[in-house]
Amino acid sequence: MLVGFHIMSDVMEKIVSLCKRRGFIFQSSEIYGGLGSVWDYGPLGAELKRNLKQAWWRSYVHERDDIEGLDAAILMHPNVWMASGHVTSFEDTLVDCKACKKRFKVEHVVGKKCPECGGELTQGRQFNLMLKTHLGPIEDEGSLSYLRPETAQGIFVNFQNVVNSMRRKIPFGIAQIGKSFRNEVTTGNLTFRSREFEQMEIEYFVKPCTDEEWYEKWVEDRFNWYIKFAMTRENLRKRQHKEEELAHYAKACTDIEYKFPFGWSELEGIANRTDFDLKQHMRLSGKDLQYFDEESKDKYIPYVIEPSGGIDRSALAFIVDSYNEEEVKGEKRVSLRLHKNLAPIKTAVLPLLRNRPEIVKMAKDIAADLKSKFKVMYDDTASIGRLYRRQDEIGTPYCITVDVNSLSDKKVTVRDRNSMKQDRIGATKIMEYLDEKFK
Amino acid sequence: MLVGFHIMSDVMEKIVSLCKRRGFIFQSSEIYGGLGSVWDYGPLGAELKRNLKQAWWRSYVHERDDIEGLDAAILMHPNVWMASGHVTSFEDTLVDCKACKKRFKVEHVVGKKCPECGGELTQGRQFNLMLKTHLGPIEDEGSLSYLRPETAQGIFVNFQNVVNSMRRKIPFGIAQIGKSFRNEVTTGNLTFRSREFEQMEIEYFVKPCTDEEWYEKWVEDRFNWYIKFAMTRENLRKRQHKEEELAHYAKACTDIEYKFPFGWSELEGIANRTDFDLKQHMRLSGKDLQYFDEESKDKYIPYVIEPSGGIDRSALAFIVDSYNEEEVKGEKRVSLRLHKNLAPIKTAVLPLLRNRPEIVKMAKDIAADLKSKFKVMYDDTASIGRLYRRQDEIGTPYCITVDVNSLSDKKVTVRDRNSMKQDRIGATKIMEYLDEKFK
Repeated sequence: MLVGFHIMSDVMEKIVSLCKRRGFIFQSSEIYGGLGSVWDYGPLGAELKRNLKQAWWRSYVHERDDIEGLDAAILMHPNVWMASGHVTSFEDTLVDCKACKKRFKVEHVVGKKCPECGGELTQGRQFNLMLKTHLGPIEDEGSLSYLRPETAQGIFVNFQNVVNSMRRKIPFGIAQIGKSFRNEVTTGNLTFRSREFEQMEIEYFVKPCTDEEWYEKWVEDRFNWYIKFAMTRENLRKRQHKEEELAHYAKACTDIEYKFPFGWSELEGIANRTDFDLKQHMRLSGKDLQYFDEESKDKYIPYVIEPSGGIDRSALAFIVDSYNEEEVKGEKRVSLRLHKNLAPIKTAVLPLLRNRPEIVKMAKDIAADLKSKFKVMYDDTASIGRLYRRQDEIGTPYCITVDVNSLSDKKVTVRDRNSMKQDRIGATKIMEYLDEKFK
Repeated sequence: MLVGFHIMSDVMEKIVSLCKRRGFIFQSSEIYGGLGSVWDYGPLGAELKRNLKQAWWRSYVHERDDIEGLDAAILMHPNVWMASGHVTSFEDTLVDCKACKKRFKVEHVVGKKCPECGGELTQGRQFNLMLKTHLGPIEDEGSLSYLRPETAQGIFVNFQNVVNSMRRKIPFGIAQIGKSFRNEVTTGNLTFRSREFEQMEIEYFVKPCTDEEWYEKWVEDRFNWYIKFAMTRENLRKRQHKEEELAHYAKACTDIEYKFPFGWSELEGIANRTDFDLKQHMRLSGKDLQYFDEESKDKYIPYVIEPSGGIDRSALAFIVDSYNEEEVKGEKRVSLRLHKNLAPIKTAVLPLLRNRPEIVKMAKDIAADLKSKFKVMYDDTASIGRLYRRQDEIGTPYCITVDVNSLSDKKVTVRDRNSMKQDRIGATKIMEYLDEKFK
């Protein structure tokens, strides 16, 4: 048994419960007792994550003209991980208690006695964090393969393919979203540290002498991106790595941290990886990965600035940050004040009276119409007050209510999630109204 | 050495070359000699795949109101694969040649002699197609885990979580897009059969007596979906499985096949999985996974209709199907006539003269403006004829050209990929024009 250090505050407990109850996050294989530190996204979590990935991809791959997208496989040639240093250096040191048999990361114990029972600890032993598998029918050294522990290497090994196929000139970046795997020993805090997780990474290739300038730019850019999508500035900070905590490939690194209920924790790291990775791949593959600058006639290995964000922990941070409790008319109202672009459901259509067929029909017609453009939910299984609360809790920015008057004046009520203010809008104008709101 | 049966026609060779040269598909870890049957998507392939997934998700999760989305992890509890039958039945039988040591799938050899050298073959031995890994620090039975060979089981084990969190009533479906892994022995034909691949699967839960009717509906629905996105009807067919080829869980199955240059091959299978999976999970987990029908007061295990498509092979089929060669003014013109929604680049902005700063500026301004809504490419690195050919080859539906006259009349030329017809449009009206085209 391995002991983690879970600090679960009150808020986290509420969020874990909301996530499960409302279909954001389920424990993987829950009916079999769960699989440690692996999570499934339910219908609303899947939409939130999709929206987050979409927002990132649009911000970098579509709206900028200096970044190309890539979608490399999880499985890669094992030499990739020799070159990157992961085979030799991507390790934790573990110790076991000889008495109670519990296992700890060496940096979590002080002295040589078990923090649980006071027993004697074994010598530390190295434990590589990459998940292994075997390709082909025989399980031997020759078939050994790894599940990638970072998406970055898929970008490095394709650097020249992208330069050539897209006629790219430096500076430019390659962006990728995808799953990575780490055999984490200490896990916990819902999806914050999982064995299977999704990354959004950019490797931005620059001329060697310009790396520090680009590094600063990327730290600013990424910090502001979270704020653009409505994360509270006061809950975000930049933390520069000290010399001794820098990874083997990095010249500098700044973490963007979020103030979770369990403490300030990393959402993203922006690293100056220098020319370490391309140089290593050149060495081990024997291929020339230098870039030829046609204007200056220079040939060089570019430096790389890497903004590397975790999608699961960002999604969690957006949920935590938007979670809001207030008292409204003597009752507690819970709302997720998610940015409109991130909200899983864009609008809910609610009939005020579910036993009036004309009202139900009008509501269903509106919902059917809006579906061509927005993710819509139709709900008639409770009273209107309760229906509003349900939508507030999952972050739906606008609720559209069809009432008795709607039948005669052909207007509906649109309620704003945050202010709870209501607008009365012509039923035929709803699409236009929402288009404007989501612009 | 394992022998595959690759039939590469002329067309496939051209497509393999186009995919590599223009940034659709690269061999994984190519600088290290490649990793067998694993592929990376370059900038244009990543966009195409994104568009394909987006189209499917929108069609089913957003535009219908009877389907919920899900995003379950690749790693699952090993009992899941005991229940599903994959641990015991997901196997190939392999034989080796005692003389030349080559390995074959037993169904690919006739008699007991090696098809390559005539040597004697070994007895057949079973080979499970699931990729294994170990979670946690010790590699033993207790830590054994698998990379999922299908996304379907993530849906089954979450069936009750979705019913409860989303208040769903039968009939309804759960849709999922995600990676799966199979330790394929015979591979080949570019991305058609890969060890790592992406699936788009729906498990549609119905009342037991209605399964055959829903099965027919889904076969039609999915067949028509490919045609909706411009796949040629004549290159598609349905093939019903014979009794003896049905999987252990299926009562009926129809494949949707595409006429690839290497022969008719499966894009998708629509299976009637009955109540097999839920029943198995009930048995092994001890959890009650029955559905309670509040109206009829019935309690039952739903039947499941599964439309299960391969994204990589669909993407390949869309490329193959849209590939077009014709002679235009004595020159060969290659175009990918992809559906507008699937095309990686929606519009290219091209200055007619790259040495005229005003023209370049106007073109860049238009591109910058369109980027907020469309995936745009700006290119000024060749003559206009060549720039058009480049865009045709990657399937860009519209090219916008800025010429000398544009400076005075503030109009640009929009060229249609398929017809090559040109419209002269006011520069300020371009967004509106494209909005209409992509509606």
